[in-house]
Amino acid sequence: MFPITNAQRAEILTQALPHIQKYYDKVIVIKYGGNAMISPELKEQVMEDIVLLSLVGVKVVLVHGGGPEITDMLKRVGKETVFHDGLRVTDKETVEVAQMVLAGKINKDLVRLLEGKGGRAIGLSGIDGGMLKAEMKNPALGFVGNVTGVDASPILDVLNAGYIPVISTLACDAEGSVYNVNADTAAAQIAGAMHAERLFMMTDIAGILRNKDDPSSLIPYLSVKEAGKLFESGVISGGMIPKVECCLEAIFLGVKKVVIIDGRVPHSILIETLTDEGAGTMVSEGDENERD
Amino acid sequence: MFPITNAQRAEILTQALPHIQKYYDKVIVIKYGGNAMISPELKEQVMEDIVLLSLVGVKVVLVHGGGPEITDMLKRVGKETVFHDGLRVTDKETVEVAQMVLAGKINKDLVRLLEGKGGRAIGLSGIDGGMLKAEMKNPALGFVGNVTGVDASPILDVLNAGYIPVISTLACDAEGSVYNVNADTAAAQIAGAMHAERLFMMTDIAGILRNKDDPSSLIPYLSVKEAGKLFESGVISGGMIPKVECCLEAIFLGVKKVVIIDGRVPHSILIETLTDEGAGTMVSEGDENERD
Amino acid sequence: MFPITNAQRAEILTQALPHIQKYYDKVIVIKYGGNAMISPELKEQVMEDIVLLSLVGVKVVLVHGGGPEITDMLKRVGKETVFHDGLRVTDKETVEVAQMVLAGKINKDLVRLLEGKGGRAIGLSGIDGGMLKAEMKNPALGFVGNVTGVDASPILDVLNAGYIPVISTLACDAEGSVYNVNADTAAAQIAGAMHAERLFMMTDIAGILRNKDDPSSLIPYLSVKEAGKLFESGVISGGMIPKVECCLEAIFLGVKKVVIIDGRVPHSILIETLTDEGAGTMVSEGDENERD
Amino acid sequence: MFPITNAQRAEILTQALPHIQKYYDKVIVIKYGGNAMISPELKEQVMEDIVLLSLVGVKVVLVHGGGPEITDMLKRVGKETVFHDGLRVTDKETVEVAQMVLAGKINKDLVRLLEGKGGRAIGLSGIDGGMLKAEMKNPALGFVGNVTGVDASPILDVLNAGYIPVISTLACDAEGSVYNVNADTAAAQIAGAMHAERLFMMTDIAGILRNKDDPSSLIPYLSVKEAGKLFESGVISGGMIPKVECCLEAIFLGVKKVVIIDGRVPHSILIETLTDEGAGTMVSEGDENERD
Amino acid sequence: MFPITNAQRAEILTQALPHIQKYYDKVIVIKYGGNAMISPELKEQVMEDIVLLSLVGVKVVLVHGGGPEITDMLKRVGKETVFHDGLRVTDKETVEVAQMVLAGKINKDLVRLLEGKGGRAIGLSGIDGGMLKAEMKNPALGFVGNVTGVDASPILDVLNAGYIPVISTLACDAEGSVYNVNADTAAAQIAGAMHAERLFMMTDIAGILRNKDDPSSLIPYLSVKEAGKLFESGVISGGMIPKVECCLEAIFLGVKKVVIIDGRVPHSILIETLTDEGAGTMVSEGDENERD
Amino acid sequence: MFPITNAQRAEILTQALPHIQKYYDKVIVIKYGGNAMISPELKEQVMEDIVLLSLVGVKVVLVHGGGPEITDMLKRVGKETVFHDGLRVTDKETVEVAQMVLAGKINKDLVRLLEGKGGRAIGLSGIDGGMLKAEMKNPALGFVGNVTGVDASPILDVLNAGYIPVISTLACDAEGSVYNVNADTAAAQIAGAMHAERLFMMTDIAGILRNKDDPSSLIPYLSVKEAGKLFESGVISGGMIPKVECCLEAIFLGVKKVVIIDGRVPHSILIETLTDEGAGTMVSEGDENERD
Repeated sequence: MFPITNAQRAEILTQALPHIQKYYDKVIVIKYGGNAMISPELKEQVMEDIVLLSLVGVKVVLVHGGGPEITDMLKRVGKETVFHDGLRVTDKETVEVAQMVLAGKINKDLVRLLEGKGGRAIGLSGIDGGMLKAEMKNPALGFVGNVTGVDASPILDVLNAGYIPVISTLACDAEGSVYNVNADTAAAQIAGAMHAERLFMMTDIAGILRNKDDPSSLIPYLSVKEAGKLFESGVISGGMIPKVECCLEAIFLGVKKVVIIDGRVPHSILIETLTDEGAGTMVSEGDENERD
Repeated sequence: MFPITNAQRAEILTQALPHIQKYYDKVIVIKYGGNAMISPELKEQVMEDIVLLSLVGVKVVLVHGGGPEITDMLKRVGKETVFHDGLRVTDKETVEVAQMVLAGKINKDLVRLLEGKGGRAIGLSGIDGGMLKAEMKNPALGFVGNVTGVDASPILDVLNAGYIPVISTLACDAEGSVYNVNADTAAAQIAGAMHAERLFMMTDIAGILRNKDDPSSLIPYLSVKEAGKLFESGVISGGMIPKVECCLEAIFLGVKKVVIIDGRVPHSILIETLTDEGAGTMVSEGDENERD
Repeated sequence: MFPITNAQRAEILTQALPHIQKYYDKVIVIKYGGNAMISPELKEQVMEDIVLLSLVGVKVVLVHGGGPEITDMLKRVGKETVFHDGLRVTDKETVEVAQMVLAGKINKDLVRLLEGKGGRAIGLSGIDGGMLKAEMKNPALGFVGNVTGVDASPILDVLNAGYIPVISTLACDAEGSVYNVNADTAAAQIAGAMHAERLFMMTDIAGILRNKDDPSSLIPYLSVKEAGKLFESGVISGGMIPKVECCLEAIFLGVKKVVIIDGRVPHSILIETLTDEGAGTMVSEGDENERD
Repeated sequence: MFPITNAQRAEILTQALPHIQKYYDKVIVIKYGGNAMISPELKEQVMEDIVLLSLVGVKVVLVHGGGPEITDMLKRVGKETVFHDGLRVTDKETVEVAQMVLAGKINKDLVRLLEGKGGRAIGLSGIDGGMLKAEMKNPALGFVGNVTGVDASPILDVLNAGYIPVISTLACDAEGSVYNVNADTAAAQIAGAMHAERLFMMTDIAGILRNKDDPSSLIPYLSVKEAGKLFESGVISGGMIPKVECCLEAIFLGVKKVVIIDGRVPHSILIETLTDEGAGTMVSEGDENERD
Repeated sequence: MFPITNAQRAEILTQALPHIQKYYDKVIVIKYGGNAMISPELKEQVMEDIVLLSLVGVKVVLVHGGGPEITDMLKRVGKETVFHDGLRVTDKETVEVAQMVLAGKINKDLVRLLEGKGGRAIGLSGIDGGMLKAEMKNPALGFVGNVTGVDASPILDVLNAGYIPVISTLACDAEGSVYNVNADTAAAQIAGAMHAERLFMMTDIAGILRNKDDPSSLIPYLSVKEAGKLFESGVISGGMIPKVECCLEAIFLGVKKVVIIDGRVPHSILIETLTDEGAGTMVSEGDENERD
Repeated sequence: MFPITNAQRAEILTQALPHIQKYYDKVIVIKYGGNAMISPELKEQVMEDIVLLSLVGVKVVLVHGGGPEITDMLKRVGKETVFHDGLRVTDKETVEVAQMVLAGKINKDLVRLLEGKGGRAIGLSGIDGGMLKAEMKNPALGFVGNVTGVDASPILDVLNAGYIPVISTLACDAEGSVYNVNADTAAAQIAGAMHAERLFMMTDIAGILRNKDDPSSLIPYLSVKEAGKLFESGVISGGMIPKVECCLEAIFLGVKKVVIIDGRVPHSILIETLTDEGAGTMVSEGDENERD
């Protein structure tokens, strides 16, 4: 890659020391998605980052969605999408395809990649161990659910047995019907139930920009209070609205800090955790202006 | 169902006592397939049987395949099957569909049904925790594998944390390619690696018949030695050959007894385990003529 | 017994599933006495019921008295009973005989029967591990005691080591004198100290009857409040008074529900726990009208 | 008692130090009987010795018989002893009385005395937890048994939970009949099954005397080989024969050393364990001539 | 020493029983110093006392200073003492010598003596595991510190692994500079952090005397309130003032009772703990007039 | 230091992944000495390397000597060195100074530095927990010992409680006399007793050179057999002889591989463990030519 001696490597490793100590034995939930999940190279790097974090004593939990792959698969099986008031209807057949793609394809592919990097991983869905409970949002829209309860014990059991849990965001209602639930929201609720030290929301943006056309206007630290102002002033708009709402919910549920992380940057997880630099916008309860 | 008093119920429960004691804290691996996996009613009963066994202290491991559902899905996605010397070729796309159907659909559906009956279940595939290692049988046939190694520790970790492990028979090779492996063989090897007390092979036949057209000719007990004779004499023939070979391999690998169980009979698992009657043909190392 | 197929047996077993799940890992204290302790056949059935409950994960504690056998033994050794104001005096010799009969004969016989049914049991008395502390009720009546303290740790130690504790209701005072204590009261206090899910008081009646001459007037559910009214109205009278007082004390001490169980009915314990039917009168804090 | 300062007391305590260290965390089985079990004063001292040993980290197991008290009780209930070829017949009624006296009276009295000295004790019989298995010696003699198996797990469970186990030497056969077994033999077999560091056989003699009329001829150390010679030469004779045979069996079964201890000497257990002096004859595999 | 039979020894041992039971599994912190640390004979006895206490189940923690030996060593290396306002200045070189003498010489010598008596000991300093945190008292006086925090976990880890912790009272500040801290104060703070049952301050006096010239005026029990009066009335004066202040601080920090123990009396620790007699003045929150 | 982006840092961290996995949960014993112990900068780096290794799951044990500092201290106290046949005599006073310097100064300074880097460390000497047993080599030379036994349990107890053990190589003989033992030999024996994965001997040379004047003639891998040849051919000579003998002894005692590491190179421990490069000569049983 670049000319660097082993002595320099060693020095760089020791410079990570205080960062490693900061996260030792803490829970970091990573909501994985976007470009970092599509580009094979970025994917490799995310897997390396996760295995490295787990080896240095961090309790990493990987939560993934998979909207685009579900859409692809629906096309392949010739399933026509039905709309209700302009919103897609998730009928029985659609949720079945979602289950196959999420729990069968994406989840197991991630487990396999982590194992390939020397990690030990077990893939779970929200169905396993009754982890995620949901209820229907709107009967007209079918099996799209709101998470109504998280039982973190299957995740903890898998962590304590020494594995990295990889989680598909499916859920069941009281009657046992399966629901596709929003992965961002589910990750926030899982992180909350685990009192995570960090929730990383991996996205395809640099973070929250004060001016969305100017990358240099990145807001590195954002308090809950400031976020409110940015909503009012319209700085947070469009697709960022649900993303940031999710961050705020996670903090409300007990997550210490949430970072909207730029998934397009190689090794952004390690940059955020093990260097002085950040890799996006860190949202926290109070006013922070440092990466610790 | 039938007129029976609660007093009679209570008596029947106590009559199961010595049977329950026999299997207490022992491992029973159930290879689940055939009609018992298709008929919704039989499926419900299998789930009840498994939850009951797990509650009375048996360590139940459920292993499933899913050939017919894979074939259906291949059809739905318009995948044409290629043949080589008359055998189906499992190309990359085919094994991907198999992975989705096995680990995503069937596995999670079973977990959901067990949870619905009050059991606690976690679904695993052979990929999770690096459980099943495979190598290619024949390059011309693609990603159909022979299991070359079983690491039972993910199964044990899940059992010890108090869950019923439900296992899809996928495997990886050293390079991380995924293989579809024969579920009967994989179940035998998993049962062997766990030194299981019993392996139940659920099928759509009454067991091994001395005369295949006469159901009354069922062989209730079969020693390894006698099995050899039945192979020679042609009594074991056709589709029964690989089934019985699988039973013998399981015994060779350390499973105490294997039962070819009639999956068409309601509650056949409980009949085999908790009553004086058997539900098929029990294969064992030596000459046995009792159900214990 | 009656013509019933193994398939029917299996179905009946699965119908017990939700009941088993309800009591899993919960403490049930059984005060054993009366006819169920005299009839050899009923005794066998009680033992079977207890071993079955312990196998399906219930923490059963068996508490017994033994008045009639003490009386027999006193006769055999030619001990004449002395009375004070019409009440029997328990002198040193009498309490010694009681100790022998309770802790030596009845207790060990029950342990032996449970072991014979495949259970693992250890017999304790209130003397062992300093479990029951007592003080004299009335010096004129001798060594008949009121329980002043329960140390449940010997019972828990024995339960946690995997045994069914069988308890004789003897107790010591601070000076180490032995007392015979009322078994009903002691069972209530033990159940209270263990925060038991259930206390079963086995008796020779059908339960609390609204009209004591009409078996069909059984009161299946009784709240503490209603019990008070029944005391006032005289429905609870005679020998039932101390029995029901004992139930109320147990509830006051933290037992969830107490059942006055008809010990004359075969397998009444299993009927009460593992079927939809009850086997007597269930007393609880509030208004309940279901068996759960 | 005698004029001794607290400074002297303290010094004496520290002189016990190397002795305490020798037995730390080791199992000592004490067969308790004879005069030390009859004299109330000696009894008190034995209890003190046992509680002290258990506090300084020794795993003490107390095994008792109770022949004389059984005989007394048989008389009190007017049971006439039947003889067969000059040997007493133990019929059903006799063994019932033995059970009551051993497990009900003597056992619980010992537990009570140990508790009174601040020890924590639990009384067990060979029936509890299926500890002692027996078979009939001679049908004509009734329920007198030979121990055919020892399951030490109930003893270990009770020790590990922090109690001093006190054991009555009753046993069951495969059909559940109760047997009275010889306490010396049972103690030897229990000590063997536990790989005890010491078995103390408390008796009413000074130990093995070379000349039974000369107390100064005490043999302090005896090897298995020398014992053989003493049998041949008739030095070991009469009632000493079964006693010494028992010692040899214990050594054969894996007990490190057996001491025939003079139970008539106050605190003989502590003298043997915590001082330089012995309190009888120590029997061991090889040639020893020191108390360690 | 004095003519005493083994029978008498045994009796004396059993008389210690209730005392042993009182301290079982409790923490006793011993601040060791003065004559008992100088006289080789007394030193031997203190080691024996500590090993004996640890064997009978007491959790003993030994804290030592070593002023005189530090002074000796400073002389040997020719270090001249500098004074500031009449107080000794502890410069870098002085604290280095103190570290060597305390953690290198005295600490390891004590560990060696305890091991020689059959105890298992590990020597720690306040530096190990970050146990003691300090800050500078007065910049002019150099590296003499006030303890600002105690992390008892290294002491507990060493105790739980079965060793007697021996502690040198060195401490570090936030920058990692080493400080010599007052051993009496450090012992009080360690005992407080461990919620010790007892803190023994070993000194060269009989205890607190009402009239310092009359040894018979020893005050055996002192409440916090009475101590206040003795300060006011001048009975506590001179070198006793910081000593008693230390006792009061320990009680304030949660130690149950503190004893100013006469280290000149042989086996004073055992006399205080295992006999009816005391060995100095016991200070406690309330009014006590007994040694328990 | 050098211009390097955080992205590059992250990539370098992930490149250490396979190396970290190789040593996960393995024991590495580091014999620390020479220049790396004198230069403050190198010392800082060694501490960082050790804390980093311990954080990534390696069980690091640090063993140190301290000859030069002992010599300095002997000078400061004006102790004249006595010689016998040209060898220094270690009299009582000398070994006392050695104990103070090793266990008091060097050991606690290292503990303090590790704690300062965020590690958790506990300093032990061979005296603590009776870890190192020694005997006199030669009475004329005084208290210089040969290690005759290693009890690794205090080291393991400290490791398991989560600390980095730092060990001074002092030892005791059976009478409790203290000995100074050679730190290289002691490290080899400690590593052997712990079945260490690696023993690193830090020295002031590049490793074993085929031509001692040509640094490019470094032998990176050396088998036991080849070492023998190098002894014969004189390539290993002078001060290297005992060093290499020590390596061979360690391998004989069960250490997997020993590395003579160049302590003058910054971060040589990390270069050896976490990069592809080595940092000296690796000695192993067989013929290896790779760093794994």
